[in-house]
Amino acid sequence: MALMGQMMQMPLLISSLIKHAARHSGDTEIVSKRVEGDIHRYTWADAERRSRQVAQALAALGLQAGDRVATLAWNGYRHLEIYYGASGSGLVCHTINPRLFPEQIAWIANDAADAVLCFDCTFLPLVEKLCEHMKSVRHFVLMTDRAHMPAQTGIPNLLCYEELVEAQDGDFIWPEFDENTASSICYTSGTTGHPKGAVYSHRSTVLHAFASAMPDAMAMSAKDVVLPVVPMFHVNAWGLPYSGALVGCKLVLPGPHLDGKSLYELFENEQVNYSAGVPTVWLGLLTYVKQNELKFSSFKRTVIGGSACPPAMMRTLEDDYGVEVIHAWGMTELSPLGTLSKLKAKHLQLPPEAQHRLLEKQGKVIYGIDMEIVDDDGHPLPWDGQASGNLVVRGPWVIQSYFGQAQSPLLQIPGKGEWFPTGDVATIDADAFMQITDRSKDVIKSGGEWISSIDLENIAMAHPAVHEAAAIAIAHPKWDERPLLVVVKKPGAEVTREALLAFYEGRIAKWQIPDDVAFVTEIPHTATGKIQKLKLREQFSGYKLPAAVSG
Amino acid sequence: MALMGQMMQMPLLISSLIKHAARHSGDTEIVSKRVEGDIHRYTWADAERRSRQVAQALAALGLQAGDRVATLAWNGYRHLEIYYGASGSGLVCHTINPRLFPEQIAWIANDAADAVLCFDCTFLPLVEKLCEHMKSVRHFVLMTDRAHMPAQTGIPNLLCYEELVEAQDGDFIWPEFDENTASSICYTSGTTGHPKGAVYSHRSTVLHAFASAMPDAMAMSAKDVVLPVVPMFHVNAWGLPYSGALVGCKLVLPGPHLDGKSLYELFENEQVNYSAGVPTVWLGLLTYVKQNELKFSSFKRTVIGGSACPPAMMRTLEDDYGVEVIHAWGMTELSPLGTLSKLKAKHLQLPPEAQHRLLEKQGKVIYGIDMEIVDDDGHPLPWDGQASGNLVVRGPWVIQSYFGQAQSPLLQIPGKGEWFPTGDVATIDADAFMQITDRSKDVIKSGGEWISSIDLENIAMAHPAVHEAAAIAIAHPKWDERPLLVVVKKPGAEVTREALLAFYEGRIAKWQIPDDVAFVTEIPHTATGKIQKLKLREQFSGYKLPAAVSG
Repeated sequence: MALMGQMMQMPLLISSLIKHAARHSGDTEIVSKRVEGDIHRYTWADAERRSRQVAQALAALGLQAGDRVATLAWNGYRHLEIYYGASGSGLVCHTINPRLFPEQIAWIANDAADAVLCFDCTFLPLVEKLCEHMKSVRHFVLMTDRAHMPAQTGIPNLLCYEELVEAQDGDFIWPEFDENTASSICYTSGTTGHPKGAVYSHRSTVLHAFASAMPDAMAMSAKDVVLPVVPMFHVNAWGLPYSGALVGCKLVLPGPHLDGKSLYELFENEQVNYSAGVPTVWLGLLTYVKQNELKFSSFKRTVIGGSACPPAMMRTLEDDYGVEVIHAWGMTELSPLGTLSKLKAKHLQLPPEAQHRLLEKQGKVIYGIDMEIVDDDGHPLPWDGQASGNLVVRGPWVIQSYFGQAQSPLLQIPGKGEWFPTGDVATIDADAFMQITDRSKDVIKSGGEWISSIDLENIAMAHPAVHEAAAIAIAHPKWDERPLLVVVKKPGAEVTREALLAFYEGRIAKWQIPDDVAFVTEIPHTATGKIQKLKLREQFSGYKLPAAVSG
Repeated sequence: MALMGQMMQMPLLISSLIKHAARHSGDTEIVSKRVEGDIHRYTWADAERRSRQVAQALAALGLQAGDRVATLAWNGYRHLEIYYGASGSGLVCHTINPRLFPEQIAWIANDAADAVLCFDCTFLPLVEKLCEHMKSVRHFVLMTDRAHMPAQTGIPNLLCYEELVEAQDGDFIWPEFDENTASSICYTSGTTGHPKGAVYSHRSTVLHAFASAMPDAMAMSAKDVVLPVVPMFHVNAWGLPYSGALVGCKLVLPGPHLDGKSLYELFENEQVNYSAGVPTVWLGLLTYVKQNELKFSSFKRTVIGGSACPPAMMRTLEDDYGVEVIHAWGMTELSPLGTLSKLKAKHLQLPPEAQHRLLEKQGKVIYGIDMEIVDDDGHPLPWDGQASGNLVVRGPWVIQSYFGQAQSPLLQIPGKGEWFPTGDVATIDADAFMQITDRSKDVIKSGGEWISSIDLENIAMAHPAVHEAAAIAIAHPKWDERPLLVVVKKPGAEVTREALLAFYEGRIAKWQIPDDVAFVTEIPHTATGKIQKLKLREQFSGYKLPAAVSG
């Protein structure tokens, strides 16, 4: 008969994170750039006390265990209070991405059966338009004080967040319950079909916070001043509101303005040393810094993920600005972190160029996550850095199923259990470094061979005249598909189609070079900053390629 | 009704740590200095395969879930294989401290009802003497190969470890079971009464491994080459065999020889950058390095715990040898880590001396652990850095009860639940930095006031002629107790009683200065390297102090 351990039984609850921060890093600051325009400062001790008031306020509105509290909000302290106040008291925090189409937002709120919707002033017009379509929402709460409440609004019984909070005394003890209870929901911003909800648990969230803060992951400590550019309205800002409490670091929450100038000023004023965001954010910041011949006085490290970071951008950040780039990969269904690129001891003696090539990959899984690459029949492929296959993962912070969907998304691998298919195509090398080569739907299938759209984009991005590039498949009578490169030039820079195509020579196999280049003024992005390939393919659906070079 | 999360259910099992290391750091080395005298090298992939063979071998011996597998062994790869092979297959790994008295070892083996005892060649004479007293042990296994087996022995049916392992094919799948299952047992080396067993679970061990590897804790990564001087026979070498697998670092296991020369050579030959041990180990290493005018070429960081690290030793390691010292506190009942001293962002602007004073404290709790200091009635005391009280802790890797003992060791604090009383006396400052001021039984009670024996020892250790010092209470007719300083001088150094007592002036309140100094050639240590105050007090029990200065 098994012998049981004799250790204290303490569930892994989200409330324990903010209690820890309040007790042991109580005077560490949380600084927010408010929607109202000013800077707000308080501490982890204040945040914990106000989160308890939020928990009381939500209970006073009649919410009960399991009820969903939706948010439409930027990165800010009130959003953080709802994260903890809702989840910590047994409710479910449902962050909605405000960059989705209005119809999708209403659809998501109805699908999740949200009971309350809390939103920033920015989204007042949006909610005024949508409120009548949100059937389950019983209370609309504007996340501001009385002075900023609208005189008139079409939203029935609109409540004021600060009034709700201030009506409570904070005399509230965080409840204990099963750590597998749902803590939060995030919908994937799918490009096709309806969005699907990932339902995180307290356990998965706390374990993810642990794993994500590790030295080989985000390496977070109480010495850091962290500015999450990644939005709290999507995948919990890569867990930073949780891992930040776990390590007790200073948090700087940037609010709605994520342009280069706003970010740069916040970095400098608050002496931010650490950040996290998608590549497009850094594109904007770097452009601003370069144009104004500025330097960073405190910024030292950033995690870049959400989509592959162009190597040229990594080089600029590291070589020109002294900012270490930690390349990461994850997705909504993974809470979101899966891999990060950090060298092993054996790599420390490699020449810098070889180290760079490793760091440009998406890297190693963090403990807890396991991965495989499989062919279209589900058979595992070798870890040789060459074979590319469908990336599948599993672990305690990977989803088992989607909210309200009976059908399992998991893939059974014979003798190896169930895995979540990511929809990414990747290689894994002998050192277990994973590299995304494409989204399975973005790969360009030319004459039975696969061309990685990401490879084509990275080469283009290394050209000094290219601001942003996207490679998409164009139908071709002989080869099925051939690549078209869509390019936004840098302001004032010039480059011809011919020069750009010549730039590929020697950098990739001849047959993989794009057939044509289309110059545009803007490339469409998804709500989470990724290039919208589907929209691009629609835009160029009738595009006629010149006589195929290899045709 | 609560909504449940929809994440994959994966128990936190010890086997998942070594599976992770084998898959993602498969060729990373584990180097062992063998009892047989030579160096053994293999990899995490080898260790995982051999651990599976050990699991099979233990099953072949008839062991069943929950059975205890005892070890009497140094830090080495075979010990590591038993850690994983036993715990990973649902058995319980019971590490016994070979430095205990033989009668205690037999008592512990009987109390734990060990079914198998695996031991290094070093302990053959010991086990020959004890085997007939170990009533429950059905199999004795010598951890060596056939060539090193004794021709004759009094141990019945002595088995050869390598033969057992090689008889198995490794075709074994790590089983899944409840993460609260016992994984291992470690007995406290109590100075009074019988030792008591802490029963760790898979969950507590994995959570401790996570927490201990964090940047503000031991900060372990795949870039590190880690040499645990702390023994695997006590509190799982501070969890390093687990956290080492979790991060996939190179491990260097030093075997039986922990003298300065042996350690120095291993540090240099294997390019160790990171270590962990009790203060006395570093005393030996530093003496050797100093005498031979050596430097470390790779050693950069060490954790020091087990007992308070004298500030003078921290200074020497940091200033003379460039080794960062991470001061830690823990105990068997805490798996063992509770606190580590790392600065917060707010401290980075302090002058170096103020930073040193913080780093000399035992530091902040790692997330998961909470602490309080309470007076003798169990009332919490303020966190002001002044009030000193009994330190109590709780968390998911703190024991709930001792093996086989009905009586709960926990203390109820009104309105705050149950806490484990550590037996340490400490202060906590406003930044949540804890500092041990004494063991509750070692504190010197002079005229109703408490004198910290550790404070007295730290001052003595700062004197250039002092190799080691211990302060103990001597009965006094007027003041109840007065301090006596027991001192071992450095080889060749000279200092008088008067000069040493004069050294205290201005460094501590006059009434706290010891009444006398006794020079000795050696101070007794416990099996885990701590000063044996109980033995010292016995040794000096009839000691006559000179007319008390303040009397």
